[in-house]
Parts: sequence; C-alpha cells; structure tokens
Amino acid sequence: MIPESLLIGKIRRFLPEDAGLKKGIGDDAAVLPLDKKHYLLLAVDTIVDGVDFRMAEAKPEHVGRKALAINLSDIAAMGGRPCYALVALGIPADLSYFWIRRFYAGIKKLAKEFNTAVVGGDLSRSKEFFASVTVAGEVEKNRVVLRDGAKAGDSILVTGSLGGSLAGKHLTFTPRVREAACLVKYFKISAMMDVSDGLMRDLDVLMKESGKGACVFTDSIPVSRACTLKKAFCDGEDFELLFTASPAEAKKILARKEGLLGTPVQRIGMVTAKPGIYFKEKETDTKVFKLSWKGYEHF
Amino acid sequence: MIPESLLIGKIRRFLPEDAGLKKGIGDDAAVLPLDKKHYLLLAVDTIVDGVDFRMAEAKPEHVGRKALAINLSDIAAMGGRPCYALVALGIPADLSYFWIRRFYAGIKKLAKEFNTAVVGGDLSRSKEFFASVTVAGEVEKNRVVLRDGAKAGDSILVTGSLGGSLAGKHLTFTPRVREAACLVKYFKISAMMDVSDGLMRDLDVLMKESGKGACVFTDSIPVSRACTLKKAFCDGEDFELLFTASPAEAKKILARKEGLLGTPVQRIGMVTAKPGIYFKEKETDTKVFKLSWKGYEHF
Repeated sequence: MIPESLLIGKIRRFLPEDAGLKKGIGDDAAVLPLDKKHYLLLAVDTIVDGVDFRMAEAKPEHVGRKALAINLSDIAAMGGRPCYALVALGIPADLSYFWIRRFYAGIKKLAKEFNTAVVGGDLSRSKEFFASVTVAGEVEKNRVVLRDGAKAGDSILVTGSLGGSLAGKHLTFTPRVREAACLVKYFKISAMMDVSDGLMRDLDVLMKESGKGACVFTDSIPVSRACTLKKAFCDGEDFELLFTASPAEAKKILARKEGLLGTPVQRIGMVTAKPGIYFKEKETDTKVFKLSWKGYEHF
Repeated sequence: MIPESLLIGKIRRFLPEDAGLKKGIGDDAAVLPLDKKHYLLLAVDTIVDGVDFRMAEAKPEHVGRKALAINLSDIAAMGGRPCYALVALGIPADLSYFWIRRFYAGIKKLAKEFNTAVVGGDLSRSKEFFASVTVAGEVEKNRVVLRDGAKAGDSILVTGSLGGSLAGKHLTFTPRVREAACLVKYFKISAMMDVSDGLMRDLDVLMKESGKGACVFTDSIPVSRACTLKKAFCDGEDFELLFTASPAEAKKILARKEGLLGTPVQRIGMVTAKPGIYFKEKETDTKVFKLSWKGYEHF
C-alpha cells in the first residue's frame, strides 16, 4: 500500500494548480481570493471509527468535538478565523439517534465557542461511522501564513506541550485559533502548520515545503507530563502550532510572560539551509546526531 | 432506524440558525454573505461504495465524476457557479493506486468542464471506499433561487427526462449548471432544487419548504426511454432541475424552441395553496387521484 504522503504528492502533481489561487493542495487549508483585504480559507478533514477514534470507547460528544476541532486547527494554522462548517456523516444502520444527537452536541458546543456556524451537511448510510467536516474561514491578506516561508536561521517554535494525544488529548484538545490570531496580529511568522502527525513528521513536512532543513534541540522539547521524549516526537494529534520566525521576532514572542493568551511557547530549534532534520541535546552542543524515530501514520 | 428526512429535520432544529445567513441547513447548498453583489454557496455530498455505486461494477472515472457532479448539481440548483472543490476520501487498504488515479481522472475532467479548481482534500484509511466532496460556488444576489419561494398557481417544470438513473445515468449525468445559469439569468424562478431522491420525494420536499402543495399531470412527465412512469416518479438520482415559475414566466421558458441550451423543459404540474401532492392524468381532467409511490431512500 502506498503511504499517504506519497499519494498526496502524486495527486497534487496530477491535478493542475489554478493560477488564481494563493495556495491549493499542500497546506493546512486552501487559500483563495475573497475580497481586497481577505483570503477565503477552505479545509476538510475526516475521522473514521477504528482509525481516528473508537466508537466503543469515546464519548459521542468528544467525537463530534474532534471532527470539528481538527478543522478549526487547520484554519488556525493559516492564521485565520473559522466562519462556517459543513458536516458530512456516514452512519451505520444500527447507530442510535441518541448517539448522533450527542455527537452534534459536541459539535455545537465547540462551534459556539469559536463563532462557527454549522450551515449544512450530508447524511449517508455506511458500514462504519465517519465524519467529514469542511470549514470555511477567512484571513487578512497580510496575516496569512503558509508552510513554505521558513528561512535559514529562523527559530522554530511550538505552542503547548507534545505527546499527550494517546492519553485522550486528541479527543478534547482546544484548537489554537485564538493563539494563532494573536501570533499573526502582533508578530511576523514565516511558516506555520499544526502538529497532527507528530512533531517528527510534521517538522519534516514544514521544512520540505520551505526547501530547508532543521536542527532540533532535544532538551527544549516541551514534553507532556507522564510522557517520553520519543512520544513527544512521534505521537500524532497534538494539534499544537509549529511555526518559524526570525530570531528577533522569536525573542519578542518568547519575552511575553503570559505566552500566547496563557499558552506557553517554546523555541525548539533552528531552520538550516541544508535539508534534513538534525538533532542536538542543547543548542550550545557541538555534537549533532540523527534520530530514526518516525511520526504517526494515520493512513 | 430513523429515516434520513426525519433525522435532518431533528438536526436542523437542534442547531441554531445564524442570523447573518441567507440560508443554512435545508437547501441544496448553504447561502452565505460574500460581497455586495454575490453570495457564497457551500455544498457537500458523500458517495459510499455499496450504497451510491458498486466498486466492483463502476468504472473509477465514473465514480470520481459522480462524486463531483452531485455537488455541481447542488450549486446549479441554487442558480450558482461552482468555483472550488475539496475531495475527502476514505480508502480501503487493498485499493490500488491505479484505481485512485482513475478516480481522480474522472474528477479532473468534469472539474475542467465546469471551471472548478480542486484546491484541497483529505485522505483517510477506511474499510469501505467513500468520497465526500465539498464545492464552493457563488451566485449573484438577485439570481439566487431557494426551495421556499413557490407560490400557489405557479407552474412546476423539470429539465430533461426522468427515470434513467438505474440504467447508468446516475454515474454519467451532466450537472445542469449551464441550464440553471441560463434560467436565472433570463427568467424569474420562484423555487428550485435538483432531483436526487426521485420526483415523488423531491417535489414533496420542495412544496413543504414552500408551505404549498402540488397537482401533477402524469401525462406530462418526461419519462426516459425504456422506463415506466413509476420509475420516472420514484427512481432517485436523475439530477434534473425541478423548479417553479409564474404561469407567464413558464410560458416564456416553454416558448424557447431550443429549451435551455438544447435541454428540453417540460411543464409537469401546478403549485396549489393546499398542501399535499395530487395527480391528474391531464391538466384538463376533473378527476384527481393520489399515488402511494415513494421516492428513493438512500439512507
């Protein structure tokens, strides 16, 4: 079976880019013309029972919450505001109305928190439950952040802590919409994405899109409580913001005692002109090493 | 198991309507503010293997075509132009890259024909194949057509012919985007939707949204070749336009020799103030009867 990243690459090459777009396939959301000052953002993400959660274990409210939250996280990663959501469901014949209602209660609560209106959807019969949510958002043209803008010498930063997803965080995380809005309003961010497949994999993606490499300081990784460094690197679904900024901008961000609206920010490495991801224990170390750990493969 | 229409009704009541929207849940597409002269349209529709098509029988190009076409049809039913598409797939582990590529070839060809850019998507692992496509479009504010505008005395019209879906039309139909654009540009249409669940069911939906009823002339139904009247009423997935207009407007539309860009238009009935769907063989008949035939239930 062909891996997801390779398949996306092939599809991306197969489908022609529209010249009028700011960004199509290959970022957290598509960036499309809207008006003089704004871009329209469109993102879609699907969760499937048995792959992204387990019906037998997860609360329906949490499943609904996650289905929307992963999309809000994509909009946040562009520096944007979510506005509208469409919810397409695949519903097994034996699923109760009670479960579906609780699922929508999870969506409704999070949608309200982030001023997102659920404006439509689709119901299909299917053997396994799935939810495919589309979110439309907007972003000021001068604040949009793509994945391809990292420059050699930029600092690499991350919000929150990494590695808690398997302990349940992946079902209850709060998308970093407000933190991202604060970032793009007050600072110049060169590249950004959300951590959905693990830092190891996603940092590699971010650097490849930017045509750069990275040196990561392992002692600086904000490891979640009761979690190992390896899990912090490899577990998927942290849904934290991973971003780059010039050293001067990074210094200003890190100088904020309150972080981003209370969420801590950590500098975890540096962008290098040379491709590939390298590691040091501390920034001041001279010893550089490689890690063969892999990120999370949903697919 | 709760029927789809009932479930949609319950969800619709459960989710609060946003006051800023022209139309949310309950039409072919959501109608959202865009700019002074235009609305943004958002529609999503999912097809699932074994429900909406059969992998073992359908060409992958046709499955891709259908996944996009049903959404273009939703945009058409609002009087709009499709602009962008997002493609979310659930892919079984044993599905070949060759199949997926042919699926995208079907999408690509139809997208090109209707000037729609595929700008993003998502790939998930799943047991059964599904494709959930979202289309964003736009429509001039003075041309948008909702489902709720039918007036008593209006003529009921339909494009093309009905009942061919099971003979393969559901995989290869051409969405009526151009015909709808022509309709809303030159005529005043009071209500419109696409026929996806069979004329019997969809006419009932259209009249209920408008708070009206209908009298249908069975001799006027444009029955597809090698098809029965019952099939024309009950088979789903014709993806023709079902719409209403004042008698004077309807007369002008029907007077066009070329129909709508070559597609014939037929007057099939009249909107009544009294709810419910009634039937006559011919308009001039005095004998009115009921039909207990049901539309197609996808769910």
